[in-house]
Amino acid sequence: MVSGEISDWMHKSGEAARSAARLVARASTGQKNAALEAMAQQILSARERIGEANAADLKAARSTGLSAALLDRLELTPARIDAMAQGLAQIARLPDPVGEVSEMSAQPSGITVGRMRVPLGVIGIIYESRPNVTADAAGLCLKSGNAAILRGGSEALNSNRAIGECLSQGLADADLPTSAIQVLQTADRAVVSAMLTSPQFIDVIVPRGGKSLIEKVSAESQVPVIKHLDGNCHVFIDDDADLLKAVEIAFNAKCRRYGICGAMETLLLGAGIASAALEKLLPRYREAGVELRGCERTRALAPECIPASEVDWQTEFLAPVLAVRIVDTLDEAMDHIARYGSGHTDAIVTDNLPKSRRFVCEVDSSSVMVNASTQFADGFEYGLGAEIGISTDKLHVRGPVGLEGLTIQKYIVYGDGSIRS
Amino acid sequence: MVSGEISDWMHKSGEAARSAARLVARASTGQKNAALEAMAQQILSARERIGEANAADLKAARSTGLSAALLDRLELTPARIDAMAQGLAQIARLPDPVGEVSEMSAQPSGITVGRMRVPLGVIGIIYESRPNVTADAAGLCLKSGNAAILRGGSEALNSNRAIGECLSQGLADADLPTSAIQVLQTADRAVVSAMLTSPQFIDVIVPRGGKSLIEKVSAESQVPVIKHLDGNCHVFIDDDADLLKAVEIAFNAKCRRYGICGAMETLLLGAGIASAALEKLLPRYREAGVELRGCERTRALAPECIPASEVDWQTEFLAPVLAVRIVDTLDEAMDHIARYGSGHTDAIVTDNLPKSRRFVCEVDSSSVMVNASTQFADGFEYGLGAEIGISTDKLHVRGPVGLEGLTIQKYIVYGDGSIRS
Repeated sequence: MVSGEISDWMHKSGEAARSAARLVARASTGQKNAALEAMAQQILSARERIGEANAADLKAARSTGLSAALLDRLELTPARIDAMAQGLAQIARLPDPVGEVSEMSAQPSGITVGRMRVPLGVIGIIYESRPNVTADAAGLCLKSGNAAILRGGSEALNSNRAIGECLSQGLADADLPTSAIQVLQTADRAVVSAMLTSPQFIDVIVPRGGKSLIEKVSAESQVPVIKHLDGNCHVFIDDDADLLKAVEIAFNAKCRRYGICGAMETLLLGAGIASAALEKLLPRYREAGVELRGCERTRALAPECIPASEVDWQTEFLAPVLAVRIVDTLDEAMDHIARYGSGHTDAIVTDNLPKSRRFVCEVDSSSVMVNASTQFADGFEYGLGAEIGISTDKLHVRGPVGLEGLTIQKYIVYGDGSIRS
Repeated sequence: MVSGEISDWMHKSGEAARSAARLVARASTGQKNAALEAMAQQILSARERIGEANAADLKAARSTGLSAALLDRLELTPARIDAMAQGLAQIARLPDPVGEVSEMSAQPSGITVGRMRVPLGVIGIIYESRPNVTADAAGLCLKSGNAAILRGGSEALNSNRAIGECLSQGLADADLPTSAIQVLQTADRAVVSAMLTSPQFIDVIVPRGGKSLIEKVSAESQVPVIKHLDGNCHVFIDDDADLLKAVEIAFNAKCRRYGICGAMETLLLGAGIASAALEKLLPRYREAGVELRGCERTRALAPECIPASEVDWQTEFLAPVLAVRIVDTLDEAMDHIARYGSGHTDAIVTDNLPKSRRFVCEVDSSSVMVNASTQFADGFEYGLGAEIGISTDKLHVRGPVGLEGLTIQKYIVYGDGSIRS
């Protein structure tokens, strides 16, 4: 598209989304759930069509030499197609956050003031290869009463088109406007820029993908962004930790999955427990093939460690690599986390109540854990039912973002002919 | 300051604020309250010094020909100085939002997950002439556990310096770091740019002042902004309204004060009640000197109205001017509000429950009112105890922003050696 076409498209698409947003915002829970269930049904019925579209995307992607990891993300196996449908049905079963009224209280003037949870409006989703994001994100936006404009990766165009048709049909089946969920049918990158510069049409952008995508989106966007950057997570094994629990947590936090944002990247060890903990952990990490990078004190106890550099403390490895540092006090551990951490997820292992209390209160991360693996940082594990992402921002929402994160509270005021004196 | 100096200053000031923020975040409620009370005491003791500083600012401002309205805002009368001190003492008496834990619940995996309210970190306040904002904003930031960097207007430099000294002394009296509240002692505009481009030091910017200041700040800022733009507020008198209550509300919403953001700017009248309502309202508005700009149907009933233009529906007059439109249905009223409103505050006057319910649910404004004057849109009236501003944003916080709006929830997770399977 040329520039004028893009701007025409954005205007038309944005106006349609805005007016659909008003209808979706006032739709009943039953109507939204009916649409979600119809979407799930449509996806199940279109299994074959979606599979063919995905095969075409995969074929094209292979010919352009997409990496094996990206090809895997792009692939929609029959099980993944079923999981998309199940995901939508599951969102239908979640409680509806819209319309919840809280904190109603009478004020001295005679008015009663409370807060009502309402949708954000129009949500722009900008994502990369995984086509299942199309259904997941659309479902969460719809259930939370928002309209959505979804712009997926160019490599998944056919898959997203096929899924988008199912979503549209589901909306139509439930008498909701199809423009409430717009899955864009273009690989034109200028469309992304148009979305990022249209605060009049889009209330919030949620980018889903690698760090470079998210940084680019954040830098360019004039629309507020709910974003997920680094997960440089720490586990601090305090001297008062239960050694066996500490070892299990430190192993799980690193080795359950290396590539997720909740994976531990630096292990902090209390000086009094370091030797005992390392004795048990070193063979486990060695067996798992984890490369250790330690401070000098760690290396004195574990000569197999290579020296940790300043950069290692700052790095989200997302790989079988772990930085290890010995600290003398809780304060030293928290100082390290404040200095190098990314505010994602940090955990303490301790049986000491005052120390656990200080850690929970003072560590400024979106998730702060006691005696649990950082790999629990996840919307499903937290009981949100589903998540559209994990926010590392400090405004609006921190940590896993579920339906509530896609809403906001407005004030509602009731009087009886009340005037202000 | 030249560019290198500004950047050195921002770095030094930002680092100091960041480290003070950690201390203030973990300060006890008692310690924060002691600081607030000490600040109030310091201001009372420094009454004379503040008055002299203010007199110097006023003298300089008069010589540069500042308008009478701005001179009034700049002036600190003895009563206003006392009010600043009272404001700080009042903030000390408000409940502390920091550390509040909610929604703790056990999850199937065995972990317990909840949310804890925590400060945002470092808040940048950019404001214009009113020097009392210095004390108010600093007090709210401190009580909510945040550090603050305050950059006031160049015309209030002496006043702000004198107030800033009292705040510093109050912090010191309570053993809190004085860099937790930094009142900038420079009129250099480059300092504002440095603040707006330092997300590594400042977590959120709150601009306080006229629309042009706020627009400039928002356009330039790389730091998230909690902002207050237009208040184009509506009152809709539904056919099922109690006529006398409706008239009182419509008069109060316009005429109590013209210049505040919660003032009604457009009156929408149900076709069935328009004639009766206008009959009672016209003489009241005439007496108050309110100029009416009506739609054609309004003008047929009230020939004294001048014709309303498209621009009138969009305008926040902040003056004795009122646009009036007759509508046939609730939907038409809500369509008008959706199209022309600014999402600030809108009210319906009606005794009809289903219509009031639809209005409350469907009108997408930060405050939606039933049978009450839009002039109630205010943090004190809502029971927040104090407000740092009114947000017209749709993310993080909408409407009057009190202590809670300066905080956010993080997740806290407790396990017992819990690992994720």
